[in-house]
Amino acid sequence: MIRKTRLFTPGPTPLLPAAQFAMAAADIHHRTAEFRALYLRVLEQLKTFVGTKNDVLLLASSGTGAMEASISNLTSPGDRVLVLSAGKFGERWTAIAKAFGCAVDVVSVPYGQTFLLEEVRKALKIETRAVLMQATESSTGVRHDVEGVAKLLKKQESSALLIVDAITGLGTTHLDVDGWGVDVIIGGSQKAVMIPPGLAYLSLSDQAWEATEVAQNPRYYFDLRKERKNAQKGESSYTPAVALIAALGAALDFIAAQGGGDLAAGRKALVENAETCAAMTRAAVEALGLKLFAPVFPAAAATAVYAPEGVDSGVIVKELKNRFAAVVTNGQGEMKGQIFRIAHIGLFDYMDTIAIIGALEQVAASALKLPGFAFGKALAAAQKVYAERTGAKKEAAEEALAAR
Amino acid sequence: MIRKTRLFTPGPTPLLPAAQFAMAAADIHHRTAEFRALYLRVLEQLKTFVGTKNDVLLLASSGTGAMEASISNLTSPGDRVLVLSAGKFGERWTAIAKAFGCAVDVVSVPYGQTFLLEEVRKALKIETRAVLMQATESSTGVRHDVEGVAKLLKKQESSALLIVDAITGLGTTHLDVDGWGVDVIIGGSQKAVMIPPGLAYLSLSDQAWEATEVAQNPRYYFDLRKERKNAQKGESSYTPAVALIAALGAALDFIAAQGGGDLAAGRKALVENAETCAAMTRAAVEALGLKLFAPVFPAAAATAVYAPEGVDSGVIVKELKNRFAAVVTNGQGEMKGQIFRIAHIGLFDYMDTIAIIGALEQVAASALKLPGFAFGKALAAAQKVYAERTGAKKEAAEEALAAR
Repeated sequence: MIRKTRLFTPGPTPLLPAAQFAMAAADIHHRTAEFRALYLRVLEQLKTFVGTKNDVLLLASSGTGAMEASISNLTSPGDRVLVLSAGKFGERWTAIAKAFGCAVDVVSVPYGQTFLLEEVRKALKIETRAVLMQATESSTGVRHDVEGVAKLLKKQESSALLIVDAITGLGTTHLDVDGWGVDVIIGGSQKAVMIPPGLAYLSLSDQAWEATEVAQNPRYYFDLRKERKNAQKGESSYTPAVALIAALGAALDFIAAQGGGDLAAGRKALVENAETCAAMTRAAVEALGLKLFAPVFPAAAATAVYAPEGVDSGVIVKELKNRFAAVVTNGQGEMKGQIFRIAHIGLFDYMDTIAIIGALEQVAASALKLPGFAFGKALAAAQKVYAERTGAKKEAAEEALAAR
Repeated sequence: MIRKTRLFTPGPTPLLPAAQFAMAAADIHHRTAEFRALYLRVLEQLKTFVGTKNDVLLLASSGTGAMEASISNLTSPGDRVLVLSAGKFGERWTAIAKAFGCAVDVVSVPYGQTFLLEEVRKALKIETRAVLMQATESSTGVRHDVEGVAKLLKKQESSALLIVDAITGLGTTHLDVDGWGVDVIIGGSQKAVMIPPGLAYLSLSDQAWEATEVAQNPRYYFDLRKERKNAQKGESSYTPAVALIAALGAALDFIAAQGGGDLAAGRKALVENAETCAAMTRAAVEALGLKLFAPVFPAAAATAVYAPEGVDSGVIVKELKNRFAAVVTNGQGEMKGQIFRIAHIGLFDYMDTIAIIGALEQVAASALKLPGFAFGKALAAAQKVYAERTGAKKEAAEEALAAR
């Protein structure tokens, strides 16, 4: 059989064709009026996409670059920070903070779980300079309670900055950045915005900008004050990734189109899209008799699933790749071999989702011994979820229309 | 929900990305050594793809252009031809032959059926100059018996040329062009070779080339003798569609890769691929309780399905388009509103096929009143067909390996 390669990975995610075309056509110099117009437009769109009144800055780096920038620009050696860690990317916060000389406290929970706010409260100290967390932990498919942590900091009258890696959270989960009081929010290009890796973006609250004035950690390439000054003129401090920025503009146009031309509505539609794909997948996986890795706070970005007892999850990843050219990811860190992850972040639709479930049934039939297995069971479960979610909405919309 | 547009139409078919890239990069002049090398290579590959020792010619035209070329180059006004007509494209043979002054006999069967060889035999006259037929009738999804007709002509010692429109037949059905004695075989670019419309190709037997010497019908753009002379030098008579030819080269490379680098094996794999997608679709449609339009000689190029009693098939086409951006086709000619057609020709894989079946279940659930409908039934039927077809082969291959 023909096998078309399809990414079902939580980054890189499938590329938007309109963004690919924009990228291919981006034959422009970056110190020109043409580029400045593009850059200012994309930065403005990003503010709406992130949902903040603050400036959003774009960096030619991976998401980790923006994580580093938020540490190097906001902390000084010896500063105390609190990391909420529940997976590989939580661990990365610890590593970066340590590299920049911070004293790191950690609230750590096992992979697949999330934090109790009470534990966070206990770990918070008067001198805690920043709380570092993920909106969703890509390595485990768990959503963390950003709103809860933000509220806790307010309630405790903590002066700690809340720094959120929302690299897989943006576009897959509801985030009220300014309303909740998130001080730094970080995104990446190869995620919900459907373009290749190479760009990171972040925005800082007023309080965070104040912190950049006193922070003593060294930074040059990631100097955010310099970057903001330039960005306001439509310039980047160093050579920008022009083609990716053109692609990002096209992708944000596409997302706006999903909201009938309104980018904020489009972002909401994108989140709902991921939620529906995730709900279909969870229902299917449970109908197969497989166990969800994160049944309690599942992220819509990706669904993590336990391999059956005695089966290496790498076998499932490999079978999906070899037989269907469907690329799903293994567990990361300590979960490698135990779970596999199917993504819903970005450009996935009903057709993609039902197809990967079909492929998973085929792999289950040939490579897994699941009691009570029958072809169509997982697919039927996903079909029902889709029909309920879209049918209910459709009826509500029709009723609203009839009520006018 | 996000909806990615996907063609499930029997031409144009989904584009091969590698061909799209080759097309975009094709910035070359056609009267250069560079183009001649490309052209000679593609013409040579086409011979293998068609499965003939004869020259294959490429025309910058749609498939209908090559149909006309085969009439204008091989017949004279007043010549008697026999058209085997069972759909819109059979009717097109009649129209073209009449336009060039031929006396047309027709064996006509209703849409959805194919001819009895006995009827063909009865209609054949001593003076019949050519028999015109389709390998598969795209408008109805029916496969015709090219081998049977070829054998019949031999048995009857007929001097009639056998001219076969294999525009949707090539790459979806087994055709032994030289072995059976097909005199003219015709293909189009927007079909199994996965590139956009704009190119037609055809090859002629020695007997057909002889006929071009005596044919009196006028032709200039489609003068095949001139075209062959030029093609042998790597030239086209008139400006060739360079980008499409570059795309075709990339597509034929892809097809060869499906056969482990062997283009003839790749063509066979492509046929089997379409057959599996078609078998999955037929099983699903029947499990839904819908009726196949061509249950007896179904083509692998596309599956034609009756809409349920009292439902316009346009409703199903529209729902698939509006809700899933999945483009299937309505019936053509007199079948419009009665059937819809799902394609398998070209770049379709398991994932595409299971997804369109899922979408069809959703449409059935919301828009059709099918007795006994349940989510997953059609999908399960397709899953079983896929598992049987690919599993059986896999086991056989493993046994063969074990037997060494």
